[in-house]
Order: sequence, then C-alpha cells, then structure tokens
Amino acid sequence: MTEHLLNQYCQTKIKLIDTALAQYIPGDAYPPIIYEAMRYSLFAGGKRLRPIMLIAAADAVGGNGAAYLPVACGLEMIHTYSLVHDDLPAMDNDDYRRGKLTSHKVYGDGMAILTGDGLLTAAFSTMLSQTAVDPAVLVKVVREIALAAGAAGMVGGQAVDLASEGQKIDDQTLKFMHQAKTGALFKAALRAGAMLAGGDRQQVDALTDYAEQFGLAFQITDDILDVVGSPDKIGKPVGSDVRNDKVTYVTLHSLVGAKQLAQIAVDNALASLKGFSVEAGILRELVMYLISREA
Amino acid sequence: MTEHLLNQYCQTKIKLIDTALAQYIPGDAYPPIIYEAMRYSLFAGGKRLRPIMLIAAADAVGGNGAAYLPVACGLEMIHTYSLVHDDLPAMDNDDYRRGKLTSHKVYGDGMAILTGDGLLTAAFSTMLSQTAVDPAVLVKVVREIALAAGAAGMVGGQAVDLASEGQKIDDQTLKFMHQAKTGALFKAALRAGAMLAGGDRQQVDALTDYAEQFGLAFQITDDILDVVGSPDKIGKPVGSDVRNDKVTYVTLHSLVGAKQLAQIAVDNALASLKGFSVEAGILRELVMYLISREA
Repeated sequence: MTEHLLNQYCQTKIKLIDTALAQYIPGDAYPPIIYEAMRYSLFAGGKRLRPIMLIAAADAVGGNGAAYLPVACGLEMIHTYSLVHDDLPAMDNDDYRRGKLTSHKVYGDGMAILTGDGLLTAAFSTMLSQTAVDPAVLVKVVREIALAAGAAGMVGGQAVDLASEGQKIDDQTLKFMHQAKTGALFKAALRAGAMLAGGDRQQVDALTDYAEQFGLAFQITDDILDVVGSPDKIGKPVGSDVRNDKVTYVTLHSLVGAKQLAQIAVDNALASLKGFSVEAGILRELVMYLISREA
Repeated sequence: MTEHLLNQYCQTKIKLIDTALAQYIPGDAYPPIIYEAMRYSLFAGGKRLRPIMLIAAADAVGGNGAAYLPVACGLEMIHTYSLVHDDLPAMDNDDYRRGKLTSHKVYGDGMAILTGDGLLTAAFSTMLSQTAVDPAVLVKVVREIALAAGAAGMVGGQAVDLASEGQKIDDQTLKFMHQAKTGALFKAALRAGAMLAGGDRQQVDALTDYAEQFGLAFQITDDILDVVGSPDKIGKPVGSDVRNDKVTYVTLHSLVGAKQLAQIAVDNALASLKGFSVEAGILRELVMYLISREA
C-alpha cells in the first residue's frame, strides 16, 4: 500500500459519496432556498474523511464498504452541519472556510441556522434509509452516531469550547473537548462501518482503539496547523486560536511537544491494527497521511 | 368523553412524559452547561401536545400508548429545539416564550444554537432507544419523523417563512409553509403512534387525514390568537405577525374568514375518525378543545 493507492482509493470513494449526496439532497427539491443552501455547504470541498473511514472500516473487516453509502453520507451531513453552525457569528464567526464564503455570509445568519438544522435532520432520514442491513443493527449503529453527535459528544464539546473561551482550562477538560468535538464522530464512523459489515467483537474493539488515537492525532494536527499552516492550503486565516485566546495542544504543550504527542497517537493507532491483514491497509495509510497533512 | 376526562388524560400522560424526559436528558450529565440549557427549554411549560398525540393515536388503534415514551419524547425534543432556534435574534427574535425568558436571553446566542442542536440530536438517540417494537417498524417510524422535521417539512417551512418576511406570498405558499412548519410533525406523531401500536393500513390512513386537518386548525387558531389573544395567557406579546409584516390566515382571509376555516378543519378532523369507536375519544376531544383554546 502506498500513498498513491490511498489517493486512488479516496478518489474512487469520494466519487461514490458525492454522487450519493447529490441524490439524497437533490437540487430540484422544494423548497429550493433550503436545498440550495444545504448543497452549497455539502459541496464546498469537503474531504469526505468520515464517510471514507466508515467505508474503510467495513472493508477492513472483510465487508463491502460501498454498500453503506446512506449511513456514510449521513456522517458527512452531520460534519457539514456542525461546520455551518460553528462558523456563525454567535460561535466562531468565520467568514471563509476552504477558501469559500461561509453559509451565513452567503445566505444570512437565520438561513445558515436552518441549513445546519436541515443537514442534521437529513443525516438521520438518510441513515435510516439504509437497506441490506438487519434493522436491529441499523438502529444500534444510528443511535450510536446520534449519541456521538449529541450533548455527550460533538455538541457537548462545542458547548465546553464556547463556555471556556478566554478562560484557562485544564488538560482533562481540553481532552474531553477534543474527544467530544472530533473524536466521537470518528469513533462512531469506524465502529459503524465495522458493525454494519458484520465485524466481530474483537474487530470492533480494535477499530474503536484505532479511532480514538486517530481522533487525537487529528485534533493535535489541527492545532498545529492553526499555528504553522499556510492560509492558502487551509482555506482560512491561521492564528485564529491565538486571537480567540483558545487553549490548544500547542499552547499547553508547545509546538515540539504537540508534534511528539501527535506521533505517539499515530503509532498507537497503527498498533491497534496489528490483528488486521492487508484489508486494513487504507486505515494504516490514512493515519500516516494525517500527520503529514498541510490542510 | 368530556373536557374533564380530556384534562385527566392529559395530566396523566404529561406526568409520564415529564418523568421520561427528565431521565433522557438527566440533570447530572456532563457537560452540565449544555444539559442545563436543554432542560431549561424542555421544562419551560410545554403542553406536550405532540407526545400526547402519539400516545392517543396508539391508544386509538387499540394499543398501549404509554409503551412508546422514547419516540413520544423525541417529538417533544424536536418541537422544543425548533422553538429555541426560532426565537433567536437571527430568526423571530423573541425574548419571551410562555412567560419565561427565551434560551438565548439566558445563555447567549451561541449556546442557544448548541442547545437546539443538542435537543434535535437527542431526539434521535432517544427515539432509537425504543424497545418492544419490531426494529424494522422503528426504523420506518423514526425515518418518517426525520423527514417531517427536515428540509421538506419543518425546516423547509421555516426557511420559506424567513425568506418571505415582508413579501407578498400566495395562498399555496402559505399552505405549504404551515403544513410544513406545524402540520408535518403532527402528522408524523399520529402516524407514529398508529404504526408503533400495530394499527392497520385503514387506521393509519384515517389518522393521517385527522392529523392534516388538526394541523390546519392549529395553525389557523395560532394566527387568530396572535391578533385577539391575551398576552398573559399566551405568555408572549401579541401582534408580532403584524409587526413583522407576516402573511397569515387572518391577513389573507380576515378574522371571520379564518374562524370559519378553522371550524371546517375541525369538522373534517372529526369526520375522519368516524371509523373509530370510543378509543379515539381523546382525539375527538383534542381537536374540539383546539378551536376553543386561548393560548
């Protein structure tokens, strides 16, 4: 497995995901104003990391990941809604994301709130349209994704983030915040893929460990990129964490310390895959790519 | 069946619903900031109309409505989230609801957005925790609720409402807006109750008709109350539709015309229940109460 193969795998899956997303949120549905706004953010250059991880996890346990596009695309809708709401003036107040104007800059604050609401709700109607899976398994998987996205997960992490801006927070709170904001959905994606494809208990556990380390490495890299990244590549201004007086892995551990922590997390993620053979190659490549990413 | 019995039925069910809601969104969960804000709005004096309707529909087809509290409470969470977001300055900009400060006035705009997000997400994790139902039926029911709450339903209705403020809209657009904003979730509530309790096709269809007429009567009454209601009873200022230059059933049909339309909808709702016996008594009382309500 090489980075070239990872690229090829991702390009193939992104095509499937984008085609499916365009069907689930059609351009000719009524009322046009909300569907247009939902599509604007859904097709704003996202890397489709969460659906790819679901698919890769299903592949890793010997299943056919591409059979689970409804659930995979639901994850992308949840991720996108969270970005739309995070960018609002009442939250992070960002005008650009991935080099494009944010939803509220194009459609106004009220419509951006509704756009996020529409995407979050569509995530569930889409996931629950998944066929060719035992309904009992689907209920379990979608419930787990909801819990990861909710008050004990993403939303809770955002709430702590918002409430702690400009305040000193301890290492433990920072850890919860990041696990909740990004880690929880990664974990749900990996576990969903494994469970949908019929992975056994041991496989699901191993992919859970992988996901936790992946999420940690992802967040640390994010914090590092906010300091050393290139605005052109990230598509938004850097240094916003410092300007907003946020506590990050870099402010807590210095740049060198944060890079070491990221490497440890990547090593741990790879170790958790030791029981898998070549089918987990994509997951191995993904986490190695993560630490070298520039955006 | 009398209004007294309706009252008794509702009080009994409200107690069940409130107890269940307090368990689903516990006061001691982490992080406290978001759970506290979610509970503030969940326990701000809601009439629990949607969960009661689900329970009453299940009872009407001969089932035990109280067995479906997870799905019923999910409806209340969806309703509450929509109020929290609607009250935001970027939307209707209301400071009070049911006589209490709105979420954003207490917690700030950002936290109110997250509170709505948390409630909407919790609706799905809660509904999917429903046991004692065939998972295939649960998937179908929850998916239908998601569609009713989403871009083709509630969210879409809000979007049209927001986009059309201060503009002339035609009767058809008004009809969509209201069916989508309130009718869709009523319909999903009634159908969910009937389907969860194993109602047959004919029963589900009849309750669907009932729900449509109920939703219509509800919306017209809402528009009437905004003109003739007492601020003390409604718990918010009246006349906001006129001030916001909104098109309503009253502005389109005059007060007398709107009252006539409401009565016709109530009559149609009652007619749709003609195939049901005494078990549908609560649904008959509910729609008759509706037209006489003062808040």
